[in-house]
Amino acid sequence: MAIPHPYLLFIGDAADDLAAKTAQGIAHWRPEWCMAQMRLPGCKADLGLPEMSPAEAAAKGCRSMIIGVANAGGVLPAHWSASIVEALQHGMDVASGLHARLTDLPDVVAAARANGRVLHDVRHPTREFDTGKGKKRSGKRLLTVGTDCSVGKMYTALAIEKELRQRGRTADFRATGQTGIFIAGDGVSIDAVVADFISGAVEWLSPPNDPDHWDLVEGQGSLFHASFAGVSLGLLHGACPDALVMCHEPTRTHMRGLKHYPLPDIGECIEANLAAARLVNPEVRCIGLSVNTSKLGGEAARKLLAELEHRHGMPAVDPFVTGVGTIVDRLW
Amino acid sequence: MAIPHPYLLFIGDAADDLAAKTAQGIAHWRPEWCMAQMRLPGCKADLGLPEMSPAEAAAKGCRSMIIGVANAGGVLPAHWSASIVEALQHGMDVASGLHARLTDLPDVVAAARANGRVLHDVRHPTREFDTGKGKKRSGKRLLTVGTDCSVGKMYTALAIEKELRQRGRTADFRATGQTGIFIAGDGVSIDAVVADFISGAVEWLSPPNDPDHWDLVEGQGSLFHASFAGVSLGLLHGACPDALVMCHEPTRTHMRGLKHYPLPDIGECIEANLAAARLVNPEVRCIGLSVNTSKLGGEAARKLLAELEHRHGMPAVDPFVTGVGTIVDRLW
Repeated sequence: MAIPHPYLLFIGDAADDLAAKTAQGIAHWRPEWCMAQMRLPGCKADLGLPEMSPAEAAAKGCRSMIIGVANAGGVLPAHWSASIVEALQHGMDVASGLHARLTDLPDVVAAARANGRVLHDVRHPTREFDTGKGKKRSGKRLLTVGTDCSVGKMYTALAIEKELRQRGRTADFRATGQTGIFIAGDGVSIDAVVADFISGAVEWLSPPNDPDHWDLVEGQGSLFHASFAGVSLGLLHGACPDALVMCHEPTRTHMRGLKHYPLPDIGECIEANLAAARLVNPEVRCIGLSVNTSKLGGEAARKLLAELEHRHGMPAVDPFVTGVGTIVDRLW
Repeated sequence: MAIPHPYLLFIGDAADDLAAKTAQGIAHWRPEWCMAQMRLPGCKADLGLPEMSPAEAAAKGCRSMIIGVANAGGVLPAHWSASIVEALQHGMDVASGLHARLTDLPDVVAAARANGRVLHDVRHPTREFDTGKGKKRSGKRLLTVGTDCSVGKMYTALAIEKELRQRGRTADFRATGQTGIFIAGDGVSIDAVVADFISGAVEWLSPPNDPDHWDLVEGQGSLFHASFAGVSLGLLHGACPDALVMCHEPTRTHMRGLKHYPLPDIGECIEANLAAARLVNPEVRCIGLSVNTSKLGGEAARKLLAELEHRHGMPAVDPFVTGVGTIVDRLW
C-alpha cells in the first residue's frame, strides 16, 4: 500500500499545533517528502511549509495529500470532503490515519474511481496476514519498547534509523502506527490487526534482510498497560528483536488513560520485556534508555539521565536533546 | 447475539469424528439443548442423536441449526447451502464457527431475510468494544490458562462450571472460542477481535456480577506460544482473574504448529501467568492443574497427577477422569 510522495499535508482547521501532530511528525522526519501544506479558514496550526491548493500542489509534482490532523473521535468532518475530492481530481492519492474511513465517503470514493487514484486508510489494514511463526530471520532488529504509551517509541526508532544511516549503515524504520506509516510511506497499523495475526503482521513487516542490516521496529503500548499489553506482546514476539531500547517519560504520574495505574519501575519493565522476548530470541539485550525530558529543566534532565545510566548500566539519552549516538555505538 | 436453542446439529459429510468435534462438544456439554443431528450422504461421524431434516427439527421446536463440522480452510462447501436454506425456510436461525461467512452466501442471506431469521457467524465479532479499563469488577473470576493451545482450557472451565452449579453456586462459563460460544449460546471469538480491543472485549464478556458469583472464563493459546501470546495476555488482563487453573497435555513434544518450540516448564508457565495477571489483580492465585492424560495409561496418569500435586503444591486433576472436585474445593 506504499503511499507515493511528495506529500501535500492537509491540516484542515486544526485548533492548535497538537491537533496537527501527525503532520508535524511527517514534516520533521521527512522534510524532503513534504512539499506544501493546506489549511482551511480558522486553522491555528502552521507547519512552516508553502501554502498550496490541491491544484497548485499537483502541478508542482505532489503525488499524495495526507490528512495530517487528528480530532476527538477520529472523524472526517463533512466540510473536508471538497478538499479531498479536489486532490483526487488533480491526480493525487489521499491518505488518512483517522478512525473514520475515506472509503466510507461516497463522493470521495466516486472521485477516486473516476480519476484512477488510491485511497489509503492506513489505520485499517486491508491485507491478510499469516499467523506468526516465531522463526529467527536474517538481518538484525531493534524494537523500541516503553513503560507506557506515547513516550517516544516512534521518535526513538526514527532517530536511530537516521544515526545509523549517517554512519553509512543500511537501516529501515518499520512503522506500526499511523504517523509512522506516513513517515515510512508504508507499514501496518498493528493495533488494528485481528488479534490472531499480531505477531504474523510484524513478521511480514520486518522480513529477512542482509546480515548487517538493522530494522528499527516502532513499538506500541507497554507490557504494563492493562488496555494494550496484548498488542505489545504480540509485537515483541513478531519483531523477534536482537536489541531493545526502553522508552520513558519521567514526569508521568499514571499510565496513559488509566488513572488508577502507576508507571512500572524501569528495571522491572526491562526485565519483563527481556523475559518475553527471550521466547523468540534468547540472545536479546536491552542496550539503552530513551527518555523524553521535555518537561524537566536542562539541569534536572542531565542529572536524571546520569542517574539512569548508573542505575541500569546502559546509555540513557533524550533523542531530542542528546541524540542517540551512545545507543547506536552499542549496535553491532 | 445469543443463539436460540434447542439446536439441530448439522455435521454434513464429516470424514471422521474429529471433523465433528465442535458438534460433539456441544452434545457433551449441552445435551438438553441438542435435539437432533443432520447428516449428509457419506458422513462418517455420529453424535448418537435422532436424525432429523430441518423440517422435522423445526416442527419439534428446534430454533437454530448449528454448523458443527470443521474442515481444512474453514470453508462452507456449496453443497451445504441447500440444507442451510431449508433450515431458514423452516424458521430456524443458522450459526457457523467457520472462517467462511454465512453472510457471504447470497442465497443464504436471501433466505434469512425472507424468513426474518438471523445468521450467526460466531467467529467474526460484529459488535464494537471499548478498550480495556483494567478495573477490578464485582464477582469472582477464574481463567483457564495453558502451557499450549488445545490442552483442555474449554473443557476445564465447563467442568468447573458444572461442579460449582451442582454444589449450588451461581456460575457462568464465558466462551472465547467458537465451540464454547455454541455451548454457552453467546460469547466472543477473542482471536478475531481487533487487537486494540482484546482486553476490552473480555471485560464486556465478563461484566460485574454478584459478590459470590464465579465466572469461568475460557482461556486461549499460551503466553509461551509465539504465534498467539498477545491474545493470551490481552485475555488474561481483560479477565482480571482471582484464580487461575493451568492446563497441560503431557505427551506433546512441541508447541502446537511450531515444531521448533518446546513446551514450557509448568512452574515457569504458572509464574509468568501470575506475574502478568498481578498487573490487574495483585491477589490472583493459581489454584490447580488440569492435565489431559488421555494418551497415558491409567497407572501412568495417576502417577503423573500425584507427582504434579507434590511438585506444585496444588491439586492436579484430569477433568475427564478424576473430575475437578479438588480444584473446586479451593474456590471461595
